[in-house]
Amino acid sequence: MSQREQLQGIVSEILAMRREKGGVKQIYFVGCGGSLGALYPAANFMQRESMTIKSGWINSNEFVHSTPKDFGENSLLVVACHRGNTPETIAATKLGREKGAAVIVLTWLEESEILSYTEYPVFYTFGANKDIAGEKTMCALYIAVELLKQTEGYEHYDRFMEGADRIDGIVKRACAHVEKRAHAFAKEYRDDKLIYTMGSGAGYASAYMECICIFMEMQWIHSSCIHTGEYFHGPFEVTDAETPFLIQISEGTTRALDERALKFLKTYAKRIEVLDAKELGLSTIDSSVVDYFNHSLFNNVYPVYNEALAAERQHPLSTRRYMWRVEY
Amino acid sequence: MSQREQLQGIVSEILAMRREKGGVKQIYFVGCGGSLGALYPAANFMQRESMTIKSGWINSNEFVHSTPKDFGENSLLVVACHRGNTPETIAATKLGREKGAAVIVLTWLEESEILSYTEYPVFYTFGANKDIAGEKTMCALYIAVELLKQTEGYEHYDRFMEGADRIDGIVKRACAHVEKRAHAFAKEYRDDKLIYTMGSGAGYASAYMECICIFMEMQWIHSSCIHTGEYFHGPFEVTDAETPFLIQISEGTTRALDERALKFLKTYAKRIEVLDAKELGLSTIDSSVVDYFNHSLFNNVYPVYNEALAAERQHPLSTRRYMWRVEY
Repeated sequence: MSQREQLQGIVSEILAMRREKGGVKQIYFVGCGGSLGALYPAANFMQRESMTIKSGWINSNEFVHSTPKDFGENSLLVVACHRGNTPETIAATKLGREKGAAVIVLTWLEESEILSYTEYPVFYTFGANKDIAGEKTMCALYIAVELLKQTEGYEHYDRFMEGADRIDGIVKRACAHVEKRAHAFAKEYRDDKLIYTMGSGAGYASAYMECICIFMEMQWIHSSCIHTGEYFHGPFEVTDAETPFLIQISEGTTRALDERALKFLKTYAKRIEVLDAKELGLSTIDSSVVDYFNHSLFNNVYPVYNEALAAERQHPLSTRRYMWRVEY
Repeated sequence: MSQREQLQGIVSEILAMRREKGGVKQIYFVGCGGSLGALYPAANFMQRESMTIKSGWINSNEFVHSTPKDFGENSLLVVACHRGNTPETIAATKLGREKGAAVIVLTWLEESEILSYTEYPVFYTFGANKDIAGEKTMCALYIAVELLKQTEGYEHYDRFMEGADRIDGIVKRACAHVEKRAHAFAKEYRDDKLIYTMGSGAGYASAYMECICIFMEMQWIHSSCIHTGEYFHGPFEVTDAETPFLIQISEGTTRALDERALKFLKTYAKRIEVLDAKELGLSTIDSSVVDYFNHSLFNNVYPVYNEALAAERQHPLSTRRYMWRVEY
């Protein structure tokens, strides 16, 4: 059974079990770092599309220490936890169980501590040649889309599922398409000490993940993720001919924001790398739902750049100085 | 009439006028850059404290291009716009009027374009010796607190207003208190090309504003704002003895996150500047509401540092190379 089918069943069951208690009134997307970033498109979907269901996108440790008052029996908690052993996310999952929330855990390993605290584990695809339609970002989206369809209704449901059917092919073609420029990028930026990332809309967090998980964590390069709409209200003053910017041009409603930032960069910066979702083929997905697929595209094209950069810098993506190595 | 009294009246009127239409079901906090940052504590308040009212915190241009479906007659839109002339925020305000939302505009100048699009302009305090209780951040909080009290009820309402009575004195004492260390900070970091800021919880956006509005915009220093709960899931790998971190230790529910990050910094970093809300006197505000006052404290203590840094670097805070000077 695919992740999509599995999650359709899980959402149905959760709604059925809560029918007499007032249904699902809130959905919280909770995780840490890259796992939190991966949930952003689904949180953005709920914020933009839902008329009645409250939603939140919160770091696990903040969620546990500063829990929203409404979190309880009418809540659906969606956590992502790659190896199932992040203490803060396990704590969030436990809290969900204590409060009587429905808890769906998106994870990769089939055995881990976090699995003891959920009735609804979902194992997402990961690794070389994974099916992008089964990745954690898509899993979280299936939950959101299904929840909306089964409660308020979602008019673009079929279009969304058509997009989900196409995303794997789009990503694989895009990865092949950027291979050459990724190597040029790696040569150009191998000695840089700082690289900015930029994005907007439902795809914003793929720029966030590239910033915190790749540049900072895996390459020890300073980085900052700038929202393209915020750029003109402060950050753009650091723009100059030396500073590198890696910018996502998304497809969908916020493309105008990204294009405006790119136009400015082309005037005042010199070292710009552009990932354009239109050029990379995302437009074959219907415009009513395309926003939510930017993340899966960008986040899966970045690895082509990342592997080239790591090789060029002789700094393997797996090297850490603190993570899993010291106490924290 | 104080901003607080004025906003009590405005919220009552908005609720009365919407009673027959189903009331206020959503509240959106919208702005750009520092004006968006200033609205964060109120958005965080709604997210944490409300059982039924949806809320969002969104950049103006993203809000206009990617408007949530539920935005309309049952919505309250709160925008902040310092000079009343930011095109994206004017567009958001116009959109609010078109959609039949109630629109409150927090602004500073008593004459500006944005005022033609709202029935509810509120002029906040600004400048030297301003009353902190009348600042935009507090104005947005009064709206949120009043909305919750008049709809669901808010049990800590009196405690919150006691806090609001105290915040001006706390801030002014804290500013005097850090004077000396702010000058030492300026001398130490005058030649740095990058400074990280860190924060969490309802006070997170004061670290965001220091990053984007001061370091990047007003000093052309590279910067990135790290959430202390996210720090351990990527960003901490850039930590070393040379890289400077300016960290907020908040009072309230997320203090444990900040203290954990500080403990790590004290082990592996050497150049750390700490703003501790406890040391700076915020604990005289009741613990049930203290989270929401961190922002006003930090955001108003930073200027002591910022002025010292600007003087030491001979780079006035008012200098821009692009903002208001070129087309964008």
